[in-house]
Amino acid sequence: MTETEKQNYMKRAIELAQKGEGFVNPNPLVGALIVKDGKIIGEGYHMQYGGPHAEVNAFNHATEDVEGATMFVTLEPCAHYGKTPPCALKIIEKKIKKVIVAKTDPNPLVNMKGIKMLQDAGIEVEYGLMSDEVELQNEIFLKYIQTKTPFVSIKYAMTLDGKIATRTKDSKWISNEQSRAYVHQLRNKHMAIMVGINTVIEDDAKLNTRLDGPHRDPIRIILDPELRLPKTAFVVRTAKTQPTWVVSKRYDQSLVDLGVRIIQMAEIDLKQLMKQLGEEKIDSVFIEGGSYTHGLALESGIVDKVYTFIAPKLIGGKDALTPVGGKGVALMSQAYQITNIRYRAFGEDLLISGNILKEQ
Amino acid sequence: MTETEKQNYMKRAIELAQKGEGFVNPNPLVGALIVKDGKIIGEGYHMQYGGPHAEVNAFNHATEDVEGATMFVTLEPCAHYGKTPPCALKIIEKKIKKVIVAKTDPNPLVNMKGIKMLQDAGIEVEYGLMSDEVELQNEIFLKYIQTKTPFVSIKYAMTLDGKIATRTKDSKWISNEQSRAYVHQLRNKHMAIMVGINTVIEDDAKLNTRLDGPHRDPIRIILDPELRLPKTAFVVRTAKTQPTWVVSKRYDQSLVDLGVRIIQMAEIDLKQLMKQLGEEKIDSVFIEGGSYTHGLALESGIVDKVYTFIAPKLIGGKDALTPVGGKGVALMSQAYQITNIRYRAFGEDLLISGNILKEQ
Repeated sequence: MTETEKQNYMKRAIELAQKGEGFVNPNPLVGALIVKDGKIIGEGYHMQYGGPHAEVNAFNHATEDVEGATMFVTLEPCAHYGKTPPCALKIIEKKIKKVIVAKTDPNPLVNMKGIKMLQDAGIEVEYGLMSDEVELQNEIFLKYIQTKTPFVSIKYAMTLDGKIATRTKDSKWISNEQSRAYVHQLRNKHMAIMVGINTVIEDDAKLNTRLDGPHRDPIRIILDPELRLPKTAFVVRTAKTQPTWVVSKRYDQSLVDLGVRIIQMAEIDLKQLMKQLGEEKIDSVFIEGGSYTHGLALESGIVDKVYTFIAPKLIGGKDALTPVGGKGVALMSQAYQITNIRYRAFGEDLLISGNILKEQ
Repeated sequence: MTETEKQNYMKRAIELAQKGEGFVNPNPLVGALIVKDGKIIGEGYHMQYGGPHAEVNAFNHATEDVEGATMFVTLEPCAHYGKTPPCALKIIEKKIKKVIVAKTDPNPLVNMKGIKMLQDAGIEVEYGLMSDEVELQNEIFLKYIQTKTPFVSIKYAMTLDGKIATRTKDSKWISNEQSRAYVHQLRNKHMAIMVGINTVIEDDAKLNTRLDGPHRDPIRIILDPELRLPKTAFVVRTAKTQPTWVVSKRYDQSLVDLGVRIIQMAEIDLKQLMKQLGEEKIDSVFIEGGSYTHGLALESGIVDKVYTFIAPKLIGGKDALTPVGGKGVALMSQAYQITNIRYRAFGEDLLISGNILKEQ
């Protein structure tokens, strides 16, 4: 098998893995392929939290005898008994001849143990192929498993002159329909969505996921120190079907009676909040804030990723708001650097996404 | 000849034309190719203002007899006696069999007359191939020939969160070295460079073109209503070798004695200034302003193009300056729309350029 063929198979496994997005948190996205005599005889991916792993699904869908075949899997097969028996064992039982792994698992329960189990059984193992892609695909899982705090993204749409609204605060619309549709994919990727109270008051934001086909509505988290949340807001009216959590200094039983959860904090401390959310198995938070909320998040040091939609428009205005407020750094040398930069066009809008480089 | 072959030849002619950038203003960039028996036997471009046209240069460089050959030329051959005899006549004399033109010339002295002259002489003519590319390449010429006012570009480098400096006004550096080097290409493209007085006072900006190889320093135009220009500034010290013009409400003979030209205006009126510059045969102005100057320019309605360098950095800061200040529009529906959008990567920086769509 040539390196190009291997890459193409692994790309397909990564594509398969992606189908699990929104359904497996806080587990990883994993895809697996079984290849024999130059053709794919089985495909699988991790479809749902608690459900069978990708490898098992690939075996279950195999159209031929898998003995002697090569398996491609995006993440190292597990070697421990969790909700399901170890995949490495299954691979051995099925007499797979060779396993090609993209990324080894950072979970200390798995790391290199799966690979060793396979090797001890005489199976040839290669690993590292397209590992960077799989790392990016599983950035949420990898952050969460290693820190037990959620992976946090901020998202905004700005004009080509760096503004998220006109001087009169009009922002409908900066980005185009295609961009706005993609935002629902991003909401689906994250377990929780977070905004400031002004977004709820001014826009009566729904904060749900509007996608054709299967998807998941995120948990709504609203930063509302003074508890100004109107009882008539959409997020309150629908709190019993889509969780609505308010982070506040205050408490109001009548909101709780309407199904809203109030997380009380003496002061809004995003770092502390993330710790708490992590303990509650929330692996990812998508912040669709305004200038103030993004400034707060960035300066709290909780942000891992930024999604910037850029629309080809100029609006001018020295008083128009920019995407990230707060105090800001004093010197360019203190700027937050972005890495893993990706570009994606949505019509004439451009999405630039990237990860914030953390100081080592 | 297939359409793909034609396109490839025309691409080469466009490449040749580009070599004239910085040397032909206010004339157009033009490239020409002579093709015979499937190979290029002559290449030429308009090298210098007042010098021979592209077609003539192509004939002069022909390595074989051009009789019966096909000529590719990016702009319609001229049919009038200007600084040189008409190129259409030359093409007829040389017994070219077929001429393929990208863009017809909007100059009323030329428009379709060159093509008609060729056709009347029995030469087959095709036109319109890659016309859009040539139009963009000659955007300066085309604006100037039709309006007699300069083509105006604004340029800025901003962070991914839409800022051109930190809250303390530090901007060294937002963009990387590759981006900053390319800015000198853009300076070379324009006949004049314009900034506000603060840029001169704060940075002692040189406002020259620093490129390897042949290039041209632009005329420096400084908006300085109160005439605060320090006599010690680099732009004053070098005013006798690179023109330095100051637009001001005031007058100071000692600056004039140092070689500075003062354009007096009761109030800074950029529209009026552009009219005057146009009359002085300045076909293009490159504004490397700050927030204030860009806001003024945009709101004066003089801006044709925007060059936005985006650096993958976040700096935050509600008081940090954005690329375009001024009053700004009130509603998103009033936004200035950008068209002819182009992307170009400089390392991890991205340049987004485009033309401002003018209301018809």
